[in-house]
Amino acid sequence: MKKILLIGIITFFSTNLSAQTETNIDSVKIRKIYTEALTNGRSYQWLNYLTKKVGHRLAGSEGDKNAVAWAKVELEKLGLTKVWLQPVTVPHWVRGEKEEAHIESEFGKFNIDIRALGGSIATPKGGLLAEVVEVKSLKEVEELGDKVKGKIVFYNGAMPADKIETFRAYGAAVGQRVNGASVAGKFGAVGAIVRSMTTKIDNVPHTGTMRYGDIDENQKIPTAAISTSSADMLSKLIEQGDKMKFKFYFKQSCKNLPDTQSFNVIGEIEGLNYPNEIIVVGGHLDSWDLGEGAHDDGSGVVQSMEVLRLFKELKIKPKRTLRVVLFANEEFGLSGGTAYASAAENKKEKHIVALESDSGGFTPRGFGFTCNDKNYSQILKWKQLFEPYNLHIFARGGGGADIGPLKKDDNVLLGLRPDSQRYFDYHHTETDVFEMVNKRELELGAASMASIIYLFDQYGINN
Amino acid sequence: MKKILLIGIITFFSTNLSAQTETNIDSVKIRKIYTEALTNGRSYQWLNYLTKKVGHRLAGSEGDKNAVAWAKVELEKLGLTKVWLQPVTVPHWVRGEKEEAHIESEFGKFNIDIRALGGSIATPKGGLLAEVVEVKSLKEVEELGDKVKGKIVFYNGAMPADKIETFRAYGAAVGQRVNGASVAGKFGAVGAIVRSMTTKIDNVPHTGTMRYGDIDENQKIPTAAISTSSADMLSKLIEQGDKMKFKFYFKQSCKNLPDTQSFNVIGEIEGLNYPNEIIVVGGHLDSWDLGEGAHDDGSGVVQSMEVLRLFKELKIKPKRTLRVVLFANEEFGLSGGTAYASAAENKKEKHIVALESDSGGFTPRGFGFTCNDKNYSQILKWKQLFEPYNLHIFARGGGGADIGPLKKDDNVLLGLRPDSQRYFDYHHTETDVFEMVNKRELELGAASMASIIYLFDQYGINN
Repeated sequence: MKKILLIGIITFFSTNLSAQTETNIDSVKIRKIYTEALTNGRSYQWLNYLTKKVGHRLAGSEGDKNAVAWAKVELEKLGLTKVWLQPVTVPHWVRGEKEEAHIESEFGKFNIDIRALGGSIATPKGGLLAEVVEVKSLKEVEELGDKVKGKIVFYNGAMPADKIETFRAYGAAVGQRVNGASVAGKFGAVGAIVRSMTTKIDNVPHTGTMRYGDIDENQKIPTAAISTSSADMLSKLIEQGDKMKFKFYFKQSCKNLPDTQSFNVIGEIEGLNYPNEIIVVGGHLDSWDLGEGAHDDGSGVVQSMEVLRLFKELKIKPKRTLRVVLFANEEFGLSGGTAYASAAENKKEKHIVALESDSGGFTPRGFGFTCNDKNYSQILKWKQLFEPYNLHIFARGGGGADIGPLKKDDNVLLGLRPDSQRYFDYHHTETDVFEMVNKRELELGAASMASIIYLFDQYGINN
Repeated sequence: MKKILLIGIITFFSTNLSAQTETNIDSVKIRKIYTEALTNGRSYQWLNYLTKKVGHRLAGSEGDKNAVAWAKVELEKLGLTKVWLQPVTVPHWVRGEKEEAHIESEFGKFNIDIRALGGSIATPKGGLLAEVVEVKSLKEVEELGDKVKGKIVFYNGAMPADKIETFRAYGAAVGQRVNGASVAGKFGAVGAIVRSMTTKIDNVPHTGTMRYGDIDENQKIPTAAISTSSADMLSKLIEQGDKMKFKFYFKQSCKNLPDTQSFNVIGEIEGLNYPNEIIVVGGHLDSWDLGEGAHDDGSGVVQSMEVLRLFKELKIKPKRTLRVVLFANEEFGLSGGTAYASAAENKKEKHIVALESDSGGFTPRGFGFTCNDKNYSQILKWKQLFEPYNLHIFARGGGGADIGPLKKDDNVLLGLRPDSQRYFDYHHTETDVFEMVNKRELELGAASMASIIYLFDQYGINN
């Protein structure tokens, strides 16, 4: 008994010691990753090029092609095992001429800045003039029914500012942008304009995707966004409807061209021990056609590239295959993510982990994990390693749109969770530019991503 | 025994229940505070006025006077128990004419943007031209000794970018700015120029306070800051010294005028139950004379005002006396904080808690507490109430410069800890303007402050 007890004690202490040693090694490695990213990082410099030299890059555009070419060259410089392009068929929507809009009343015209929503059809060539009906939700349109016939429906449901996470506030309101035109079109409206998706009151219209779904061709109506400030003004005019009758005019010439080709840009470092276990880190290379796509998702792109650069620079040879994927066309229907997952399926590749950064280049607050309980309890043990870096949020749920199609019962999808307060100041607008990204915040995100990828690579996942 | 056990159980459950109920009431109240601050807050609007209409407000300046007048009027509008001005004698330093600087070499002149440090003397009227000696620390100057005689010492020790908290990086480098001129002057240098205190590489010089300490009058030399970008360039020129000899020229006409008068602006809501227990919340009303003092410390000022407004608006009648103090002259030697504490001492006022916000109007991450163990263990129980608002850092240490003089063995000083990554992008520069403050981040800070003040007011502190 005594001997057994002694062995028990020795085993206990040595296991404990070895766990402690592992933790120490990990924390030293993570400190090195952060130091390299903060003192010698390349993400900011890459972002500068991607935003200022390539610029915006909507699927199918010239910028999209240039972004693909640039990313491939930059990944090739890193000395990865291999770099390649994966062809993806993408939709090709173009905004056309600059949109026009104004309010027309007996007192004259008042111009309003407007941007077509992505996927919308054009107005008639001479534009569209109609009375406005204001609503705060899709449900209100259904209640109004035929009363919206011949009118422009004005969706003015604001993102609720009392939510702490702005993504929740977005989630509560964005249905108006996505489905507003199809719902209004079904009841005979002739156009739909939408309050921009931000809690900030300013003069900047926010574009974004919309869908007609399965409504009839003749029910499809043009749709566009106006700024929050214009929306407030318009709402006040409507309130005073008796004093001043007015109509709203807008004109846009956007259209859907035939599908075209783009590419997922992929690079990998082959794993030393388990090359068939693949760990993906990525963001989407496309952006809206306004601004420079700096936060959405230039930041995620350069952070993902930086993860692999950090491994190379710090001579961390991954046990598993580490792959960066810069996805084509997220904004317009996820073609890149879908194509990547489908190719992986065909090749019977085993993706154990996929991490996406697509919530802006802001100070990282933590990660959101979509995985089973067993994997989650393993992950929670790592949480303390991130506290010195002020990452405190390890939560269930999350990942990213592009990696979503990779989900299996036993793998782990995760998303970087940066501070969300400023994201919707810039989202899908002309102000989403390089200058709005802080170098240190961007770099801390990249280091956080590299650190958790390092842990997944070291320990794999529980299957 | 059984009866006692039963009573024990009942007591246990009812105590527990009552603790739970308290927590529920507190969490409901805190939710109300955040909702009001985020949907109907006044801090951003106040900051707009303070930055754009009042502008910068260095102690003794016209802006300082206007800020005092404005703050008093705004506090009076809130319907507090009383509002008053507390006279404070403040130093009065003026920058004088715009500074000039250039590099002079056989290849010509190259202009450099420069800003005198606060408290510095002027150069001779025609400016100062001398060779440059580059150092990275005060110690290096002491090692060089007489070799700096007749030279301009160029302090180029960068803030270490690998620190996660930028305030630590600042702490590691700022000694050069504060004491650089006095150390160099002692060894016969004729001037001192300092690399700006930021990790950002740009063209913006950062001013800030400097001290001559007790050196002889004839050892006092003029000192100024150059931008990080200019510092890097200058360092490269020095490195290539053999190829190009050059001298550095600068001219500044700043001076110290006689002390003058400013005011702490104070407002209070008298406590219902314990009016003699005072809880202070504050920031400093003065700012540097560059930019608009938006983050430093316009944000702290309007957040502190908002705390009292939130109590009034939500009809929370404090048990203890709740006082907002907008301190005069923090930047130039803490006259406001010192005068306030000294008056409190004279009046035998009992300050149980003082909270300062002076780290910028960024997303709040938590609080730092200076207090004894007993108080700290009470405070830690409140931490969970802040997790829904993404405040995770409850740490020992911290407070604020202005409230420092209020410290007693048994009271609690605390400081709001916002995210620190962007603070030194703007600190003491022309870019510290309203546009650099995000409305939601500012409001979340105010709500966090009001919430913890609410808890201190409810429960007092353990004495």
